[in-house]
Amino acid sequence: MSLTSVFFSEVLGTAILLLFGVGVVANVLLTDSKGHGGGWLLINFGWGLGVFAGVYAAYRSGAHLNPAVTVGLWAFGADEYAPGVDVTFGSTLVYFAGEFVGAFLGAVVAWLAYQKHYAAHDEPGEILATFSTGPAIRSLPWNALTEAIGTFVLVYIILKFGDTPSQIGPLAVALLVVGIGNSLGGPTGYAINPARDLGPRIAHAVLPIAKKGGSDWGYAWVPVVGPLVGGALAGLLAQGF
Amino acid sequence: MSLTSVFFSEVLGTAILLLFGVGVVANVLLTDSKGHGGGWLLINFGWGLGVFAGVYAAYRSGAHLNPAVTVGLWAFGADEYAPGVDVTFGSTLVYFAGEFVGAFLGAVVAWLAYQKHYAAHDEPGEILATFSTGPAIRSLPWNALTEAIGTFVLVYIILKFGDTPSQIGPLAVALLVVGIGNSLGGPTGYAINPARDLGPRIAHAVLPIAKKGGSDWGYAWVPVVGPLVGGALAGLLAQGF
Amino acid sequence: MSLTSVFFSEVLGTAILLLFGVGVVANVLLTDSKGHGGGWLLINFGWGLGVFAGVYAAYRSGAHLNPAVTVGLWAFGADEYAPGVDVTFGSTLVYFAGEFVGAFLGAVVAWLAYQKHYAAHDEPGEILATFSTGPAIRSLPWNALTEAIGTFVLVYIILKFGDTPSQIGPLAVALLVVGIGNSLGGPTGYAINPARDLGPRIAHAVLPIAKKGGSDWGYAWVPVVGPLVGGALAGLLAQGF
Amino acid sequence: MSLTSVFFSEVLGTAILLLFGVGVVANVLLTDSKGHGGGWLLINFGWGLGVFAGVYAAYRSGAHLNPAVTVGLWAFGADEYAPGVDVTFGSTLVYFAGEFVGAFLGAVVAWLAYQKHYAAHDEPGEILATFSTGPAIRSLPWNALTEAIGTFVLVYIILKFGDTPSQIGPLAVALLVVGIGNSLGGPTGYAINPARDLGPRIAHAVLPIAKKGGSDWGYAWVPVVGPLVGGALAGLLAQGF
Repeated sequence: MSLTSVFFSEVLGTAILLLFGVGVVANVLLTDSKGHGGGWLLINFGWGLGVFAGVYAAYRSGAHLNPAVTVGLWAFGADEYAPGVDVTFGSTLVYFAGEFVGAFLGAVVAWLAYQKHYAAHDEPGEILATFSTGPAIRSLPWNALTEAIGTFVLVYIILKFGDTPSQIGPLAVALLVVGIGNSLGGPTGYAINPARDLGPRIAHAVLPIAKKGGSDWGYAWVPVVGPLVGGALAGLLAQGF
Repeated sequence: MSLTSVFFSEVLGTAILLLFGVGVVANVLLTDSKGHGGGWLLINFGWGLGVFAGVYAAYRSGAHLNPAVTVGLWAFGADEYAPGVDVTFGSTLVYFAGEFVGAFLGAVVAWLAYQKHYAAHDEPGEILATFSTGPAIRSLPWNALTEAIGTFVLVYIILKFGDTPSQIGPLAVALLVVGIGNSLGGPTGYAINPARDLGPRIAHAVLPIAKKGGSDWGYAWVPVVGPLVGGALAGLLAQGF
Repeated sequence: MSLTSVFFSEVLGTAILLLFGVGVVANVLLTDSKGHGGGWLLINFGWGLGVFAGVYAAYRSGAHLNPAVTVGLWAFGADEYAPGVDVTFGSTLVYFAGEFVGAFLGAVVAWLAYQKHYAAHDEPGEILATFSTGPAIRSLPWNALTEAIGTFVLVYIILKFGDTPSQIGPLAVALLVVGIGNSLGGPTGYAINPARDLGPRIAHAVLPIAKKGGSDWGYAWVPVVGPLVGGALAGLLAQGF
Repeated sequence: MSLTSVFFSEVLGTAILLLFGVGVVANVLLTDSKGHGGGWLLINFGWGLGVFAGVYAAYRSGAHLNPAVTVGLWAFGADEYAPGVDVTFGSTLVYFAGEFVGAFLGAVVAWLAYQKHYAAHDEPGEILATFSTGPAIRSLPWNALTEAIGTFVLVYIILKFGDTPSQIGPLAVALLVVGIGNSLGGPTGYAINPARDLGPRIAHAVLPIAKKGGSDWGYAWVPVVGPLVGGALAGLLAQGF
């Protein structure tokens, strides 16, 4: 598989993930939306089923959809990122690029789908919350730790999927994400994926949304660094075990 | 498989889909129903599991249950709509006919199941909402775009299911519909299927329901055109990729 | 497989189904229970996962757990109720006996598990509702029709499961029950199973519960006759199709 | 597989189970958490998907994660606890040790993930409830019976999984736990696992949490003895059937 194909595959898969993910938060938070106030389990199934759809869309490139997964595979010492795609510095960058571009584009499409609801909404903090994560109680080191723990579990279990016989396919990682959201999403809203957070944060910054406020760049490093550290540690531990 | 069998298979499958779909909205909205106020996730699992049951019922004809799926397969350049059913102008019309007739009949059966609750309900807008979709914020071009985006994802992922090894059968499309409802259903209530919307809208118009109002024919083209465009684009993109 | 084994297998499976089913309604309705007010989707997952567990427990006898399923198989013209169990008048009665005895016993065990909560509860209608179904709007012919429609779908799709390749096992029927509850449970609380309703109703009548009221015997025929008619029609239609 | 590997495998799997389980209750109960007030179904999916992830992590040692499962296999007369691990007094103790140590560690990591929320919370009973179970209505014999019933179902169905063809892997036991929580969790919060309760209770006792109260040691035997009795009876019945 060519790196060009990898790039477009990851763009498409990550875009679908973010279309679902930004969409479900918009549905729950924005004015007059039919899912308004639908609750945390609805949000988690939204993100989990976004992973589900995104993995089907990007299956040929291994459906990383997440730089922390890419880093985890690298730390694990994998030979290939997907069948026929060697682990190299160049291929790693291609995955990263596809993931961030896809995340940005998916957020833009979700904004198009909820256009009139964004226009009607006048609470800047909630508008940002549909794009990017933010802490329930701001404490950047602890927030980064929470993100690292959640991502560690995500990547470690993904690396272990192959050991256990099962035929449920992408549903496994979808349910894993639902579970992480249920259990570890309370303090930070569970980015557990640098692209999922930074791509839409950039979209928030550049899109013309009437009543948006700032994009909280002071927090932006937390859901990038925390997940990358968690993913790398998961890869190392899985290699050792 | 004869086209007569295709017709009856799609009628039955689409009828079951609409029986579940109209039923779950009736359960959540109508007076005194045991699921009253059950929330958006309940509605989405209702529709998703309606797809689940409908696909089992119509498996032999490929279980399109949705003209946007039929159009998507045509745009994709599929040779067959189901094993032994060639893609022709005639077979396409047979799928369309089965889908619309089934959707109409399923809505009628749901109305029979909730007979006393329809009779007791006196809010015309909610009565219509159990049959057909309507916009949260009315803006026909944007509403059509939202429907096109949701249907694009539905049809594109369905066309990609075959690439990914998994053995969960009809559960995959059921969960995909739950996910689209969670994430993209907020603005329009996600028809993502012309038959799902138009068939029950006709049922609403003709059934003797005491306190119903108009059937909102001014909106009726949106959940027909949006999904057909989204489905066709999905088929074209899947062919190109 | 001997008919004695069939009997005990169906007793155990149906008891587990009712333990879960009575349990989840007790959890949602009874005083101080941790799931109090948990909502309709929780109730439906309770019943669906009761079917899930019950089918694993009774797998060797085909896990009917429901006289309407037994009748549906008979009407379908099945040769065997389970591998090695011929369809005869005698074996039919053995299934019926196992199903009703199991349903009674499962309700008794659920009452033991929620003993202190039953003792603390002083609303007779809700106590009965944990055991048996009742109509949201009482109209016996329409209530019976609703039960027949729900059971028709249940039995028809079960009979079609074998046509569709999938490897999710008992999860399929579990999700089908969740879906029927979501969509068709609003008017009557979806018995869709004569044993599920009558066995616990007898338990309600005989158990020493401080503040229980009557067992509403005037309604008791509806969730018996409706499901049997629906199941038989499903068997006949599946045979014809 | 060496007993050292068994120990670390069970530690890791049970730690992940408790990380998810303590995490979801913290998410629902603690101040300012994003899942605050998320409801009983969210809690049950949290625990069920904790089992899901934990089983993948500990698959090679059979993923008991629960002394009641270990005891149930012993009472069942199993030859091996996992492929290559004989049932002996020594191996039983290794499973017990791994399960309790893992449960303790998982609770500690969950406390780290929710650090700032524990610091902000000033209701001691809710802080304890994130770690250990407690009765809705205190009556130790009846509470123990409820725990025994729930664990009986858990272990019995696990022992029967192998009889039924299905390919959903760890999802089966995950859904079983969701179902037990839905239906039998109302009176005691369903420990159904001595390690799940005692390990975190010790963590609660030793961790420096500002406004915690006592660890309710008077109740601590109930979620140990009840599950062990229930698991042993399930093993004996499964052997007999």
